[in-house]
Amino acid sequence: MKLEIDKLLARDVRSGARLLRWIDDGVAEARAVLKVIWQHTGRARVIGITGNPGAGKSTLTDQLIGRFRERGLSVAVVAVDPSSPFSGGAILGDRIRMQEHANDEGVFIRSFATRGHLGGLTHTTTDVVHALDAMGWEVILVETVGVGQDEVEVQRLAQTTLVVLTPGMGDEVQAIKAGILEIADVFVVNKADREGADRTVRELEQMLEMGKGGRPSLGELMHHGGLKASDLEQADRASPDEWVPEIVKTVASRNEGIDELVAAIDAHAEVYAKACQAPEFIRARLRQEFLEIYRRALFARGWSYLMHEDHLQQIVDRMLDRSSDPYTLAEQAVRALGSR
Amino acid sequence: MKLEIDKLLARDVRSGARLLRWIDDGVAEARAVLKVIWQHTGRARVIGITGNPGAGKSTLTDQLIGRFRERGLSVAVVAVDPSSPFSGGAILGDRIRMQEHANDEGVFIRSFATRGHLGGLTHTTTDVVHALDAMGWEVILVETVGVGQDEVEVQRLAQTTLVVLTPGMGDEVQAIKAGILEIADVFVVNKADREGADRTVRELEQMLEMGKGGRPSLGELMHHGGLKASDLEQADRASPDEWVPEIVKTVASRNEGIDELVAAIDAHAEVYAKACQAPEFIRARLRQEFLEIYRRALFARGWSYLMHEDHLQQIVDRMLDRSSDPYTLAEQAVRALGSR
Repeated sequence: MKLEIDKLLARDVRSGARLLRWIDDGVAEARAVLKVIWQHTGRARVIGITGNPGAGKSTLTDQLIGRFRERGLSVAVVAVDPSSPFSGGAILGDRIRMQEHANDEGVFIRSFATRGHLGGLTHTTTDVVHALDAMGWEVILVETVGVGQDEVEVQRLAQTTLVVLTPGMGDEVQAIKAGILEIADVFVVNKADREGADRTVRELEQMLEMGKGGRPSLGELMHHGGLKASDLEQADRASPDEWVPEIVKTVASRNEGIDELVAAIDAHAEVYAKACQAPEFIRARLRQEFLEIYRRALFARGWSYLMHEDHLQQIVDRMLDRSSDPYTLAEQAVRALGSR
Repeated sequence: MKLEIDKLLARDVRSGARLLRWIDDGVAEARAVLKVIWQHTGRARVIGITGNPGAGKSTLTDQLIGRFRERGLSVAVVAVDPSSPFSGGAILGDRIRMQEHANDEGVFIRSFATRGHLGGLTHTTTDVVHALDAMGWEVILVETVGVGQDEVEVQRLAQTTLVVLTPGMGDEVQAIKAGILEIADVFVVNKADREGADRTVRELEQMLEMGKGGRPSLGELMHHGGLKASDLEQADRASPDEWVPEIVKTVASRNEGIDELVAAIDAHAEVYAKACQAPEFIRARLRQEFLEIYRRALFARGWSYLMHEDHLQQIVDRMLDRSSDPYTLAEQAVRALGSR
């Protein structure tokens, strides 16, 4: 099966669908194509939309598609669905609803299932966004559920990340704070016609005020000296330092507050574009992009070693008969990586 | 500074405190000690307690300490606190409250701060649990916040994991389902005197019923053939297949429901002990333990390569001038790992 790069770069939907399938299946061809087309990435506006199931992300996404289409921009949507049987249903319904754009060739919607684990698919999502970017989609909306580690990873790809909440979440706002504060550029309090919307807004405002100290200085990222080994795992998204997250109330189902939301997104994009004039900001972004791909390559290499000649089985044998310990065995395995 | 292994293994608190400090500081001495003492691990009952801030985990932990002490068992508590300035206060308060056990030499409480990221400290926590286990603490309670990827990792160490919820969480229950179903052995609906407790119990029951299909078959873990590369990242906790999570209502602050909770924990422990008679179950556990340590060793090696002779800077340079792409560069870096 062949894939013509020229066609792909000219936004040919069939070529694009094929590449995305290859990426999802994890076949070697996908990587070969990604290497070639990477040079064409970096042009799309990537906007992340994250929040709990039921927060109304899909309806918001729907409204945003409309607004960007009105401006004549092409829009691709990547929705990462949890494959969990519980929330699967509702989300699938939303997906179907979004098909109202199905006849618009300026809109491309793809959803991917996570693998039942917390965000197991993320790595593929990174590649999917690269592919859509190279294809020339002008706006890419990445919709994810929750704020797990892997969602943070996906949102790192985005230039602007919306975190969607609903009123009356109570203790939950507390729970998600730590993670969310670091990825949100715009907080969307959706279903704002419900009781408690203003309280949620106030809580967010307080959180932002208090959080100024706690928020990791993103400027640090731009300095090589600030890097630690943990950055490989927990790399932050490069984001302009001068941006203070905005809070917007919406009722997406009634198209209310969407203008304000788009204005906030645009305002962030402007600050972002300005930050991109600093070479060090671009370098920080590229570094994060590399680290994410490197991490995967490390895993793949490390795993292939374990699977080679039953290495993993032998390691477990040695733990079982207590002739060695996992710390020593791990060191030996890592050292042996190079000797093949 | 020296550390006498004999003293450590005899539960000398000062030696233990020193080792935990070394682990937390990430010094090389910690690893050397862990290698030696690993042979003495595997004896403790490790019980995980996870849930959102405000769910009452610390109060529950407090009650559990009391129950296990009544049985004459020594108890160590590892609390992983988010260093977030928002929830930090309350949790610290709880910690202080737990100091009522401070004069009991059969109780050891240590809290560790996460590093502002989603569970950045987890890796250390694994080592901490190993250390306490080797020291001879009979029960180890590991308290973590939330259900991020890293929390799942910590809870993987536990034989029995409690997930603590509070009534009236609304949409949130949905949100946490996917991750939680996989780690919970016992669901604790705490603050059960609040409105909505029965509804929360019903929702959990429904979830468990629906989830039977969706829950990854833990039996799969026991078969070598079922392993995939993603297992290195998303390794499941080995847990007896025949266990169906129990749901227990408590009002921890009034000591209500704690007997039922302890009974559920004991019931799970019994099923667990039976599963441990199968060598393949033990192998699966050891494999997960190794993979976690191996993953860290891989990262450390991969990172030291990047930091060597400005490799990372050179890589970013090549992305910046578009003379290569991150996929190719990552492959080259991984291949070069062995050549030093």
